[in-house]
Amino acid sequence: MMILYYHPGGCSLADHIVLIETGLPYRLVKVERGKRTEDGRDFMTINPKGFIPALELDDGSVLTENLAILVYIAHQAGALLPSDGLDRWRALEATSFMTTEFHGNFRPFFHVDATHAERDKARKLLVKHFATIAGQLGDRPFLVGDRMTIADPYLVVMLMWAEKNEIEVPKRLNDYLAHMKTIPSVAKALTDEGLV
Amino acid sequence: MMILYYHPGGCSLADHIVLIETGLPYRLVKVERGKRTEDGRDFMTINPKGFIPALELDDGSVLTENLAILVYIAHQAGALLPSDGLDRWRALEATSFMTTEFHGNFRPFFHVDATHAERDKARKLLVKHFATIAGQLGDRPFLVGDRMTIADPYLVVMLMWAEKNEIEVPKRLNDYLAHMKTIPSVAKALTDEGLV
Repeated sequence: MMILYYHPGGCSLADHIVLIETGLPYRLVKVERGKRTEDGRDFMTINPKGFIPALELDDGSVLTENLAILVYIAHQAGALLPSDGLDRWRALEATSFMTTEFHGNFRPFFHVDATHAERDKARKLLVKHFATIAGQLGDRPFLVGDRMTIADPYLVVMLMWAEKNEIEVPKRLNDYLAHMKTIPSVAKALTDEGLV
Repeated sequence: MMILYYHPGGCSLADHIVLIETGLPYRLVKVERGKRTEDGRDFMTINPKGFIPALELDDGSVLTENLAILVYIAHQAGALLPSDGLDRWRALEATSFMTTEFHGNFRPFFHVDATHAERDKARKLLVKHFATIAGQLGDRPFLVGDRMTIADPYLVVMLMWAEKNEIEVPKRLNDYLAHMKTIPSVAKALTDEGLV
């Protein structure tokens, strides 16, 4: 059974949602920001880079990097990422955009030693990127095609981080987030992580 | 025929190497930092996010985000990224690590308005991440398995950026870069982009 090492409300929430949505068997292990797992292990022995999430596979290998984990889970399930066609590439493109430009620009908001200027710069870029994503979403319920892909749970996390850090996003994205939160897999992940 | 929008020595060099290595037909269009293409178009009309590379597909769609482009090309060619198995996930993991932690931390070196403190912070993280990658590489000629994957050309670009910005990397990675430069696809891409 796959084991997801997660931190409540962290970007690992995307993987958590995807695991529930696919119906694959999994187990959760919480990691505290101090990098100890809830069962008392040093997380650096699991992922020496120290980044959460990490996914322990059935053979004991540990996969890191959120995008790789999301694509891996989708591949195992044959769901949430079409195996070919333009929707596959658009979903991968959107997910990559989130791991680089979105996640990257949220970093100053998590680091206590980040300067005001660094946060301002990052905020401007995030506002711009959310506008791009809102344009891409249009009136559709999901980012790519007509069903959920791995890009949607990641966007949910980015929107929750925006809310927490008072970064204004287009109304369309607030509506999208409200709708996503009504989807059973999303609702369950939020409840399981103690976020609602 | 696919069209790669590139900037000499930019992270698009990874896609350029991969295109040559796969043998797929492609055409290059250079984009200047001022964001005009060599044939006089405004690059923002091609990729409104403004990021290089972009890949124009046979049907005229434009794919963006370097990782998505690399996986797309590998998928078309059936090369440079195994279709399954642990090597596939390790290659995707390494490529994602490069687009996020490596590329992201090089950003202050490209922005004239970045502060000394921002560069120092980024440099420390890059040194740490290069050490991680050197450990992962060990004595093998390629990052994952026994042949080139999409992760290697990206690492080549990161090492060239390190050299340019005087960021010290482990000797093992300098040797790796020297070896990679002897591979015909890498040598051709460097020549075509006017880098040697």
